[in-house]
Amino acid sequence: MRFILVDWGTSRFRAFLVDGETVLERLSSEEGISAVKEGQHRDVFLRHCGTWLEGEPAVPVMLVGMVGSREGWTMAPYIACPTGPDDVARALTEVALKEERKGHIVPGLCCEPAPGAVDVMRGEETLVFGAGITDGLVCLPGTHPKWVEVREGRITRFATYFTGEMYGLLRHHSMVGRPAAEPEDPSGFDEGLEAAERNGGEGRRIGLLHLIFGARAAAVTGRLSPAALGPYISGLLTGDEINGAFSIFPKPREVTVIGDEKRVALVAKALARKGVRAVRREPEQALVAGIQNMLARL
Amino acid sequence: MRFILVDWGTSRFRAFLVDGETVLERLSSEEGISAVKEGQHRDVFLRHCGTWLEGEPAVPVMLVGMVGSREGWTMAPYIACPTGPDDVARALTEVALKEERKGHIVPGLCCEPAPGAVDVMRGEETLVFGAGITDGLVCLPGTHPKWVEVREGRITRFATYFTGEMYGLLRHHSMVGRPAAEPEDPSGFDEGLEAAERNGGEGRRIGLLHLIFGARAAAVTGRLSPAALGPYISGLLTGDEINGAFSIFPKPREVTVIGDEKRVALVAKALARKGVRAVRREPEQALVAGIQNMLARL
Repeated sequence: MRFILVDWGTSRFRAFLVDGETVLERLSSEEGISAVKEGQHRDVFLRHCGTWLEGEPAVPVMLVGMVGSREGWTMAPYIACPTGPDDVARALTEVALKEERKGHIVPGLCCEPAPGAVDVMRGEETLVFGAGITDGLVCLPGTHPKWVEVREGRITRFATYFTGEMYGLLRHHSMVGRPAAEPEDPSGFDEGLEAAERNGGEGRRIGLLHLIFGARAAAVTGRLSPAALGPYISGLLTGDEINGAFSIFPKPREVTVIGDEKRVALVAKALARKGVRAVRREPEQALVAGIQNMLARL
Repeated sequence: MRFILVDWGTSRFRAFLVDGETVLERLSSEEGISAVKEGQHRDVFLRHCGTWLEGEPAVPVMLVGMVGSREGWTMAPYIACPTGPDDVARALTEVALKEERKGHIVPGLCCEPAPGAVDVMRGEETLVFGAGITDGLVCLPGTHPKWVEVREGRITRFATYFTGEMYGLLRHHSMVGRPAAEPEDPSGFDEGLEAAERNGGEGRRIGLLHLIFGARAAAVTGRLSPAALGPYISGLLTGDEINGAFSIFPKPREVTVIGDEKRVALVAKALARKGVRAVRREPEQALVAGIQNMLARL
């Protein structure tokens, strides 16, 4: 079946004209949600996708991501976990596109990983429903990585980490990252993973705030080279994220990681230290397959 | 005995003319180490303290803090822990002031809290030696809080945390702090301490990176008010720092906390949750007493 798919996140607008599993056409722009004012979403959509809309007068138009947030086109309320692609397909929020044509915003998910605690996602649910697994653990690296537990094709619970944004803060806005130099020495990543072990496993957990200052102390005393510092911070945070994920979710034999090759290779390296295998899945393929999975339930 | 004491940190220059335990005169300026170019330290010192130097031709001149770092006046090498005020007094680094007059820079301390790990301090050692305890645990809140173990008047080991700088990054430079509003609702601090419990104690430790994102999720879902968000982040980080400290140092019945009243009250509240009492000590008094403690050993 054919459909138009818009992945509209905070910083990017990406659209796809899809037939079955094949992307026929794709486009992207910097007009993410944060760059679009209230009331302008329809115009931005039509400017980019108006031609497809006319050329394909009957295909569904699916919108995924922050487009459904309070700051987006229209608020698509969160659905609580556990939930599956059928529940999500029944909870799409309509927006008016042109004349009688409607678009359908995929809702985000929320869950309560512990009493009183709350977690949210918008967009990743679609990739997970397209990850090609019915039982297992899915990791989506990025600015705010998600770890998602899937049972019988449904998302039972998930946890979000601050890893990517934290890396940016430490590397570019803090005193810890100041001595960092490029080109980078990638061996720093392994040293960072090693340091993260001091905050995981069975032994004492000395605290991430101490390990972060430790990167600074190691740099000023010359134990860590300026070239290794950036990768060290990345390894430390990645390792601590995985420590946390495996304290929430039972450690599996393998994790499906949806991301680009370079980032997934780093996650795979970190997982290998824990004896866990990473299976990579292409984000665009997962996104398209996730929408198909939902549309098949309608 | 009389002495001139300069506490020269990254962002401030503070000087004291002291007699016994009494500060006779004090001055301060924004000319911290980060604002002073190489070769200019002597001039800055003389401009501020030249009159005292002439009026007190025989008293020792002691310099404490980042003035002894690589970016300071002259590098005063770190002394390894365990170390006491006698060792520190024997390891002062001289700088030429005017004619034959010398100044004495107090060295920083380093320690190896775990094999391969390193930690450093500059300035806090002096406050700890003036904290009036011979055995116990000392906490110095701030941008980079220190927890310091004292045995028989010597510093055996210590650990630094990134808490204060992290608060600034999250509150003012990240997506987590963006919804925060003032005036603040101080009850957020207790909620943050409560959340930190999920990453400490005997149970599962789900990871600080997850809890930080959790503050964002709680704010966007309306579970945490914008007014409570800033104090919540502060409580979360303070609680996690204390979790870490009590995994490194045996939890005592009381902790000596050197800091201003407002900050110490927050630390005391966090410690009380763990059944630990906070005893406050005034930073300036501790600084002066620490120098006296060293001078008494010369």
